Amino acid sequence: MRILGIDPGLQTTGFGVIDVVSGQQLEYVASGTITTTHLDRGDLPARLKVLFDGIGELRVRYQPDAAAIEIVFVNVNPQSTLLLGQARGACVTALVTANLAIAEYTPMQMKQAVAGTGKAAKKQVQLMVQRLLSLPGLPGEDAADALGLAITHAHASVATERIRAAGQVARRSTGAYKTGRVI
Amino acid sequence: MRILGIDPGLQTTGFGVIDVVSGQQLEYVASGTITTTHLDRGDLPARLKVLFDGIGELRVRYQPDAAAIEIVFVNVNPQSTLLLGQARGACVTALVTANLAIAEYTPMQMKQAVAGTGKAAKKQVQLMVQRLLSLPGLPGEDAADALGLAITHAHASVATERIRAAGQVARRSTGAYKTGRVI
Repeated sequence: MRILGIDPGLQTTGFGVIDVVSGQQLEYVASGTITTTHLDRGDLPARLKVLFDGIGELRVRYQPDAAAIEIVFVNVNPQSTLLLGQARGACVTALVTANLAIAEYTPMQMKQAVAGTGKAAKKQVQLMVQRLLSLPGLPGEDAADALGLAITHAHASVATERIRAAGQVARRSTGAYKTGRVI
Repeated sequence: MRILGIDPGLQTTGFGVIDVVSGQQLEYVASGTITTTHLDRGDLPARLKVLFDGIGELRVRYQPDAAAIEIVFVNVNPQSTLLLGQARGACVTALVTANLAIAEYTPMQMKQAVAGTGKAAKKQVQLMVQRLLSLPGLPGEDAADALGLAITHAHASVATERIRAAGQVARRSTGAYKTGRVI
């Protein structure tokens, strides 16, 4: 399974692509940022188009099977909240129109999955992402967050798969119990 | 010129299409709403996809030349602001990926253009939109707002055209002055 992680932002949207090779074994594929800083700050439609098109390009280039995007929170500045909301709206729209299954995680869930604590600092996330994916250097903050989201989804998927498998075993047992036969 | 007006909302996005026949003469083409209320409230990606796809359908069906979308404001509830932002992000993305020129107006600008006062009540906007477009009945609130945005853009475009034309005349005069010839 190939996972595309997205850390949405109006100025800089981070992305990270990883492969789940087998079980918990992860492999780095790519990471980076989509930036809109070269555009007129007031031209929101043009900036949202860059985010939308950028994610579309990632989809074509890396052919991910699933996507994980950060759940954003209310900012101290309500105007910033509105702008971040619109940026995330463009990103989610890009993922969903690409027919990707989308998982959403809070920054705390990501930090917990990557660094073992929901209160991990930015640097700690960068270091843990570097270690988990055996990267030669420290990834940038936005790319690290995006890779962290992809890692979180990889872990969650493995856990879900285990629970599902256990459920099937349980259902089987129930079936056996009902019919009185031992399978 | 055919204008598509969009009043963005996560639950209900209003739309209105009008033709600018000549000068200030406007003709009603269509209006209505795109709703996401039939979907799971928690499935934001699916809801944003409905908005994006809905606007894409409007574009194919009505082939507008330009779009006008409402500038949304910070809500009392920050979480609502975030949701509205994401809905607007999906709508703007749909318009901009359809290669439509996008104009943005505040609700006050729309009310001013349609009803003559930026403090007009919802009902007043509905009544004025009905009158300006010679509609047989009162349009719904969301559709009326969307039609109002299209009307605002029609007025603004006519005014811009006049200013541009006046500018050309002025530039011509300047040119004549510079070369010392009278055109």
